[in-house]
Amino acid sequence: MIVVKAGGNGNLDMEAICADVARLVEQGEQVVLVHGGSNETNVISEKLGHPPRFVTSVSGYVSRYTDRETLEIFAMVTAGRINKLLVERLQQLGVNAVGLSGLDGRLLEGKRKSSLRVIEDGKQKILRGEYSGVIQWVNAGLLKTLLEAGYTPVVAPLAISHESEALNVDGDRAAAAIGSALKAEKMIILSNVPGLLRDFPDESTLIPHIPPEQAEEYLERYAQGRMKRKILGAVEALHDGVRQVIIADGRTAQPLRRALAGQGTVIQ
Amino acid sequence: MIVVKAGGNGNLDMEAICADVARLVEQGEQVVLVHGGSNETNVISEKLGHPPRFVTSVSGYVSRYTDRETLEIFAMVTAGRINKLLVERLQQLGVNAVGLSGLDGRLLEGKRKSSLRVIEDGKQKILRGEYSGVIQWVNAGLLKTLLEAGYTPVVAPLAISHESEALNVDGDRAAAAIGSALKAEKMIILSNVPGLLRDFPDESTLIPHIPPEQAEEYLERYAQGRMKRKILGAVEALHDGVRQVIIADGRTAQPLRRALAGQGTVIQ
Repeated sequence: MIVVKAGGNGNLDMEAICADVARLVEQGEQVVLVHGGSNETNVISEKLGHPPRFVTSVSGYVSRYTDRETLEIFAMVTAGRINKLLVERLQQLGVNAVGLSGLDGRLLEGKRKSSLRVIEDGKQKILRGEYSGVIQWVNAGLLKTLLEAGYTPVVAPLAISHESEALNVDGDRAAAAIGSALKAEKMIILSNVPGLLRDFPDESTLIPHIPPEQAEEYLERYAQGRMKRKILGAVEALHDGVRQVIIADGRTAQPLRRALAGQGTVIQ
Repeated sequence: MIVVKAGGNGNLDMEAICADVARLVEQGEQVVLVHGGSNETNVISEKLGHPPRFVTSVSGYVSRYTDRETLEIFAMVTAGRINKLLVERLQQLGVNAVGLSGLDGRLLEGKRKSSLRVIEDGKQKILRGEYSGVIQWVNAGLLKTLLEAGYTPVVAPLAISHESEALNVDGDRAAAAIGSALKAEKMIILSNVPGLLRDFPDESTLIPHIPPEQAEEYLERYAQGRMKRKILGAVEALHDGVRQVIIADGRTAQPLRRALAGQGTVIQ
């Protein structure tokens, strides 16, 4: 079983990724595809007159402020647009895809973070009405039921809180949670860089292999921006039973074939 | 098993409908909820700068012209926004809802109608690039798998063509196709009128009962606008094994409870 995370920031070759998913499924592999949607959510939020608002947390992370209206747009774009277009494309390639969000059947259940501590104009401030969260439980049974019946689940990065509110969750962490829950052999995180770089953004400084016990050290030393979450997701997944995590380039032809051949940063 | 169709044109009491679905599920009933989305699609299409275009067919029916951009907006709104907000609400009411569109697992497969013969400015014209269709096959197995595992499917009115293109389909006809495929005991179509009216829009002229063999006659004689599709769906469903169809008021408190008590137009 392979969990693939792809997409979210626009310039991955989703066509090549779908073709590779189809090839794997045809070979009898069970695949779960988890996608993102930040970029398209920003574009559509702007058009709908509710532009995205990014905030800097007290610990220095930049993230989206997800008020209820943003959450509803995020759900619409990720679960409705991106998810269904991926399902359509996979069906055209002969994959019997079923699109789900983390709300459906409480697939991804977590704790809501209802406020953010942010820095604005040099001052600490608390923003309330936030709808994001951290996944704490995965309904692996639902995924297994679908996989066993021959379907390929395609998952949008929404979760449901313990109080049953829809939440925006990070796609990389969602993939890690699913990989862990399914004890997937491999998790492949496709990105717009070739893997973890020793000297970002110099792609010739790709780190080809990270021993799992040193992953947190590499995270601290080399990971920038969103790569931090990918490595964090990798560490969690390996800790919980995923055998191998590969962070690889999602902009090339045959991205999954390359990743499975070891091109990228392999954490094992 | 009960198939419920609700929503599409704005003024149904979805809160009351969800509460009634929850009550039925709690009583051990298997329910499939099919929804619409025309109204919200119109609103969001306008905001996105691609306003809806309605055309009159040569046979006098008014329908939406679904070009590819409209189809993608329709998918986004119905499968992403309406479907996920319904799933969220049902989960809050203790129903383990799973949202699907007709694309997922080829749930609703049909024939694409790629052009429309329309009348514009008094002249016949052919509009190409249409993405709508008629359902010809339902993946009842997927619904049964979910129902047997304790989930309540919530279905958005999209289908997939034989060539795996996403299609806009009529929600009432989708509910009828699902009811038929599942040999549902009852199908309840909730509407913004109390049922079929002898003298539309006079609600005191409700027709309480239609013998199935006379349904087509009633259709010709009394049905106006969208009610035609509801009666047509009812006729199809009864023909294919649904035992009873009830067209009832979706604007009131306890709409399903009332419908099941026979308030509305019962076709049996």
